[in-house]
Amino acid sequence: MAEYAIGLDLGGTNLRAAAVDRSGVLLEKIAGATNMSEGREAVLEDMVSVIQKLRKKWGAGGLAGIGVGVPGFILLKEGIIKNSNNLPFFENLPIRDELERRLGARVILENDANAAALGEKWMGAGKEVEDLVLLTLGTGVGGGIISGGRVLRGYLGMAGELGHLTVVPTGNPCGCGNQGCLEKHASATAVAAMARVMSLGEGLTSKDIYEMATAGNESARRIWEIFGQSLGVALAMLVNTFNFPLYLLSGGVLGAWDLFAPAMLAETRRRSFTFRTTHTRIEKATLGDEAGLYGAAYLPWIESPGRVH
Amino acid sequence: MAEYAIGLDLGGTNLRAAAVDRSGVLLEKIAGATNMSEGREAVLEDMVSVIQKLRKKWGAGGLAGIGVGVPGFILLKEGIIKNSNNLPFFENLPIRDELERRLGARVILENDANAAALGEKWMGAGKEVEDLVLLTLGTGVGGGIISGGRVLRGYLGMAGELGHLTVVPTGNPCGCGNQGCLEKHASATAVAAMARVMSLGEGLTSKDIYEMATAGNESARRIWEIFGQSLGVALAMLVNTFNFPLYLLSGGVLGAWDLFAPAMLAETRRRSFTFRTTHTRIEKATLGDEAGLYGAAYLPWIESPGRVH
Repeated sequence: MAEYAIGLDLGGTNLRAAAVDRSGVLLEKIAGATNMSEGREAVLEDMVSVIQKLRKKWGAGGLAGIGVGVPGFILLKEGIIKNSNNLPFFENLPIRDELERRLGARVILENDANAAALGEKWMGAGKEVEDLVLLTLGTGVGGGIISGGRVLRGYLGMAGELGHLTVVPTGNPCGCGNQGCLEKHASATAVAAMARVMSLGEGLTSKDIYEMATAGNESARRIWEIFGQSLGVALAMLVNTFNFPLYLLSGGVLGAWDLFAPAMLAETRRRSFTFRTTHTRIEKATLGDEAGLYGAAYLPWIESPGRVH
Repeated sequence: MAEYAIGLDLGGTNLRAAAVDRSGVLLEKIAGATNMSEGREAVLEDMVSVIQKLRKKWGAGGLAGIGVGVPGFILLKEGIIKNSNNLPFFENLPIRDELERRLGARVILENDANAAALGEKWMGAGKEVEDLVLLTLGTGVGGGIISGGRVLRGYLGMAGELGHLTVVPTGNPCGCGNQGCLEKHASATAVAAMARVMSLGEGLTSKDIYEMATAGNESARRIWEIFGQSLGVALAMLVNTFNFPLYLLSGGVLGAWDLFAPAMLAETRRRSFTFRTTHTRIEKATLGDEAGLYGAAYLPWIESPGRVH
């Protein structure tokens, strides 16, 4: 029987799981919604049931393991989500042990952006490298660091919180306690907030600002420029810190690449001698919102359950 | 015969070399000056001669290898110092090959701050951990990252350029092309420059500013506070990025710890959820200016010559 793994990607909106074989072929994917309103028990049950469904269909014999990506600060050894804006009811629940108990199988927990970075390394834009950084640009900004082919986790599993790099020391306040965090200046939410500050209209989304900018609105263009500069400040620091060959960006706002990338690259060049003088690449990720699913499924092949390194 | 390695630490001022055994006992140390004024050939010859001296005395049979730490951006595969403010005449010279040719032995090249970080991990303040970051605070600020017990080098060997993290996006200009680099706001040079900006007097050193602050001079106290805040901005980003258990500081300005540490720790706490909620340590390194020597000597035991990872 062919070996396969099950990956699950739990977000504030979507709950996705897949069976993926050792060579990265997606055998089956189940996509559903995260029933936030029905609470913790309902979401836990959905997670368990979708994994059981895949395991039943593809067989327990060939199952290499189960990887689960969740948003928030993860304590890996304890298998706990310490802090999560998207899934507050999971905070401090020993979610890994709970899943293991219900499934009767080991589960490897990982932060969702870390899982996405691993997915891109395995089957996406980072296939050719062993070291990369991924920034996921959404309502917030997540980060994942792949070093030597594996997730850089830190001693507690909280590494890669790159959305909280300070890019404007006196900038917008952030829920994490800091101000001027990358995610407060270069996320879909930040774009909408800037539009409000500039009185471009109420209730505008980042897509609206994209269309206004494309139609020639100067204020809207300026917003994407600031977005790009903020990303550039962070990317220059990441390049100076890691000297990795590849830095990837993902998320819906990538549609506005042409509007923010010139400012982003100029800022990175200006602030990083290494970037300016080497062939370091900053590129779009390619797996879209399936990256986390691939990464979660890849975990059982490279990590022992609960191992922190 | 007991196995030992030779480590050499080349700085703009000092040239030091030592024979160190596998357990970290310093068998012999030779300390001299770097003859900058006599030029490249003289310095190269001094490096070769001091290594030969140690090799002759301790025997070629037990020599595990030779590690050399040098300041500047290193291209590891090529064994070249790409850019060095302290040793401009070594720029673009294939220094590793040149040393190997003259010594008839393999040499492992490393950036000096990386070597110092490795030394602290091996025999200093980082003995108990496998992961740490070291910031060397001197005329500039260097950085070394130890991940899984080894130097994080990046794909070219240029990782850990932490003195060029942006801590004040609109701050002081830096030779690297950026502005607001950590080393322009939290080094001995930065302290002296702030004293000049504040008209505290001409030609003051960081030691003078330390004494003025201790004597109660408010402006001098403020300078150390800004120094600490700048460090805190950088440390918070490092904690958020790596989630390592230990961050070390070294350099002469550590004497002013009591003046800058409170502001540094407050700033790190404010800007890093991880730091605020975990037992992450920010401490003084313990090996002083011998850290680089220990680290250089340790390289042969953990790296293949020329290997980049």
